Amino acid sequence: MNNLHATDLLPVNQDGWKETETFLKEVVEILLSYIKTQNDRSSKVLEFHHPQDMLKLIDLSIPDKPMSLDDLLNSCQEVLKLGVKTGHPRFFNQISCGLDLVCMAGEWLTATANTNMFTYEISPVFILMEKEVMRKMIQLIGWGDDEGDGIFSPGGAIANLYAMNAARHNAFPRCKPLGMTSVPTLCCFTSIDSHYSIKGAAAVTGIGTDNCFNIPTDKLGRMIPEALEQKIIECKKDGLYPFFVAATAGTTVYGAFDPLIQIADICEKYGVWFHVDAAWGGGLLLSPEHKYKLRGIERANSVTWNPHKLMGSLLQCSACFIRKDGLLFQTNQMSADYLFQQDKPYDVSYDTGDRSIQCGRRNDVLKLWLMWRSKGMEGYRKQINRLLDLAQYFTSKIKRTEGYEMVIEDPQFLNICFWYVPKRLRNMPQKEKMARLEKIAPKIKGKMMERGTTMVGYQPDNNTPNFFRLIINNPATTEEDLDFLIQEIIDIAIDM
Amino acid sequence: MNNLHATDLLPVNQDGWKETETFLKEVVEILLSYIKTQNDRSSKVLEFHHPQDMLKLIDLSIPDKPMSLDDLLNSCQEVLKLGVKTGHPRFFNQISCGLDLVCMAGEWLTATANTNMFTYEISPVFILMEKEVMRKMIQLIGWGDDEGDGIFSPGGAIANLYAMNAARHNAFPRCKPLGMTSVPTLCCFTSIDSHYSIKGAAAVTGIGTDNCFNIPTDKLGRMIPEALEQKIIECKKDGLYPFFVAATAGTTVYGAFDPLIQIADICEKYGVWFHVDAAWGGGLLLSPEHKYKLRGIERANSVTWNPHKLMGSLLQCSACFIRKDGLLFQTNQMSADYLFQQDKPYDVSYDTGDRSIQCGRRNDVLKLWLMWRSKGMEGYRKQINRLLDLAQYFTSKIKRTEGYEMVIEDPQFLNICFWYVPKRLRNMPQKEKMARLEKIAPKIKGKMMERGTTMVGYQPDNNTPNFFRLIINNPATTEEDLDFLIQEIIDIAIDM
Repeated sequence: MNNLHATDLLPVNQDGWKETETFLKEVVEILLSYIKTQNDRSSKVLEFHHPQDMLKLIDLSIPDKPMSLDDLLNSCQEVLKLGVKTGHPRFFNQISCGLDLVCMAGEWLTATANTNMFTYEISPVFILMEKEVMRKMIQLIGWGDDEGDGIFSPGGAIANLYAMNAARHNAFPRCKPLGMTSVPTLCCFTSIDSHYSIKGAAAVTGIGTDNCFNIPTDKLGRMIPEALEQKIIECKKDGLYPFFVAATAGTTVYGAFDPLIQIADICEKYGVWFHVDAAWGGGLLLSPEHKYKLRGIERANSVTWNPHKLMGSLLQCSACFIRKDGLLFQTNQMSADYLFQQDKPYDVSYDTGDRSIQCGRRNDVLKLWLMWRSKGMEGYRKQINRLLDLAQYFTSKIKRTEGYEMVIEDPQFLNICFWYVPKRLRNMPQKEKMARLEKIAPKIKGKMMERGTTMVGYQPDNNTPNFFRLIINNPATTEEDLDFLIQEIIDIAIDM
Repeated sequence: MNNLHATDLLPVNQDGWKETETFLKEVVEILLSYIKTQNDRSSKVLEFHHPQDMLKLIDLSIPDKPMSLDDLLNSCQEVLKLGVKTGHPRFFNQISCGLDLVCMAGEWLTATANTNMFTYEISPVFILMEKEVMRKMIQLIGWGDDEGDGIFSPGGAIANLYAMNAARHNAFPRCKPLGMTSVPTLCCFTSIDSHYSIKGAAAVTGIGTDNCFNIPTDKLGRMIPEALEQKIIECKKDGLYPFFVAATAGTTVYGAFDPLIQIADICEKYGVWFHVDAAWGGGLLLSPEHKYKLRGIERANSVTWNPHKLMGSLLQCSACFIRKDGLLFQTNQMSADYLFQQDKPYDVSYDTGDRSIQCGRRNDVLKLWLMWRSKGMEGYRKQINRLLDLAQYFTSKIKRTEGYEMVIEDPQFLNICFWYVPKRLRNMPQKEKMARLEKIAPKIKGKMMERGTTMVGYQPDNNTPNFFRLIINNPATTEEDLDFLIQEIIDIAIDM
């Protein structure tokens, strides 16, 4: 680009159309080449460097003088080269993975349209689109036609915070003006395997993490309803006020589904708000074959559902749904008439600013809408069913492969938790074997990252040493990729 | 694209490279053409339609069958056509406006890299980049080399929530486990002109909006320090525990800067946390000529700063800085060892998940970093100084133009608040004139939206009828665009 700078582009240089076009097209070439490489299985998932080494490989400083467009293009290339290819068919490390290219195109458009979701005034199409997409999602949840309100939020943790805050407002509207000193000591319940953001929400809202009780789970990782009921009774005896139960549909580690119907019954019996954190599992509602796992979700008072998980949207794309219409508004509006004027020349009930705990709010719906249209309901059904088939393929294969042991024998979802037991450990007494296993997964993971051929996460649990949690949520993944992973772990652990 | 579908693209169709490339390049052509049009002043800023009419113009439904790629491309074109061009040189409606094309390129790259900011493991480069950019911002705030921690957050409202929550944890760490019943009745203070998210944070945290006291402002919209001190004393007498003062550097409506030094003195005297909401004004730290307006910010305990405002980044790009190192971690970590393992094969102090109230967190730094590099410190200095010059140009011009009246005589920043008084009203007694003016701005705005030639927001204030608030924050804007606006309002209001 012949030593051009940003000031040679539009809008600063009003005659800079040609330069602008050339620059943006070169950026796109870099991105296209990245996408091509990522989809080539012989390419590495990552090129691992420790932080201190990485800092030597790339200059991240902010300069005094402007950098040239050529230098910026080089920066783009370097950044991509040294990053982790989360869309690589052999990246199994995170629940959010894969790179849906229609969704990505939607995100490019979102960037170019660069608007803000607080008013119809400046986001007319996107506000209507959000309404329409949420209507569809509410239908899938199974609420009535006149029920349900929602808001796109920056991730599931904040969606859970929305839900807890709305539940509190529903029980004690005076808490909003007067604070927690005006209400009894509230307490809430969630399974021990639920996402830590439920506890996080209890901290932020001033309820306190000790007042967020962890209900034990069964051997599949599902909340035990009897234990929940017992704990609610106990809390009431202790003078606490149970106000919120968060069930999980698709736990983070085991992919378990809490028994929603039984939990709904208990919530009804004790007059407690019933929240379902379906951040991960919500997408199953798109599969007529598998949605039975969420039976009872239609009885929830609120639902968290992250399309950036099972629906494969780019990060961030998350929504919180509240069954009782008007409650989001009552909970969150702060009478900011100076921003959300009531005398504007259109129907201001379309404005969303007063329902949000954010002010400026990113457009996270366009990419989802475009992707959903590209698949239709049928396409999603196929995509999600295929992922579950792949999970079954992988499970039955490692069950037949020497050295592999299941943490949970029959995974319910797309999380497959397993150990790989190196030869040397296989005949040890169980106790010693388990003790040694603690260090095996981190060691394998370390070598895996050095090789850069694949990525899968591990974690410990209270009772179990470090194990791998494979996530099958990348539509790019095939049986061969799973075979590759199984063999790769064997190869890496050969000397351990 | 000959009736192709998403399933013909990568990764589902492994041989679909050619189709993928063609599709994405067609998307880019649509985006480029939008950018070109947006920078053409003869194009409209918007094509206004009421919600019910808009729904007739565009089909937003989610279909059962997949839509073809051609249909998706048409959808993209329609969406852009019916949207509001927030980057148009004559869009003055919102604090976040303009479309920096290097920043946009960065956002395209972000979409393609599609990763998550919670661990170094999957975002090595972006985690280091975020650290480096935050280090630079902390330097500009003026904290010491060993001071200051920060986190990118989805918008200023949530950044303010981070700050209030950290302040509470700092004063009463037992509140995190035990909740608000374990602490005195907390109260906080902010000016009556501050952003409503301070009140919002008081609601969410369970402090209560009535315990968030509005301190009056002077005629420039700045918090009156004497009134703050008086209120703190009063609250203490009433048995409340003052723990948090939020000063504003750049208020939303008037662009006022609270007197930070005097407020810092008061906070020190009474042992109260000193927060500066510099969401809007923070960017002035990049101008040696204008940063004096934020004098005293270096004494803050926490700062909110949104690069998606004055620095011109695409939405969302916002950060919360906490002076006391370690506090973000102590406040927000939930011991989620199953996600943020401590035995990983690299220095896990680089992981950020435990400092955040989010779990998944979007990469909002790359676009800022790339744009900042494209300008350098020098480029930003010029850009920001020029915006302030333009604000002065506009102010002095409307002061000389018949019919225009200033709400605040001498704007301190890039917000210019004014009335346009139609001829018929000019000679009315002041009281009657003011009463009639209430309806004038909405009327002008309505016609302006119908014409679609320009956009500027209006709002009322407690004591004043509806007035326009012009924001000059679009580097594309020129003197001629401001002249155009002045004349356009005159033309629209000719018969009013």
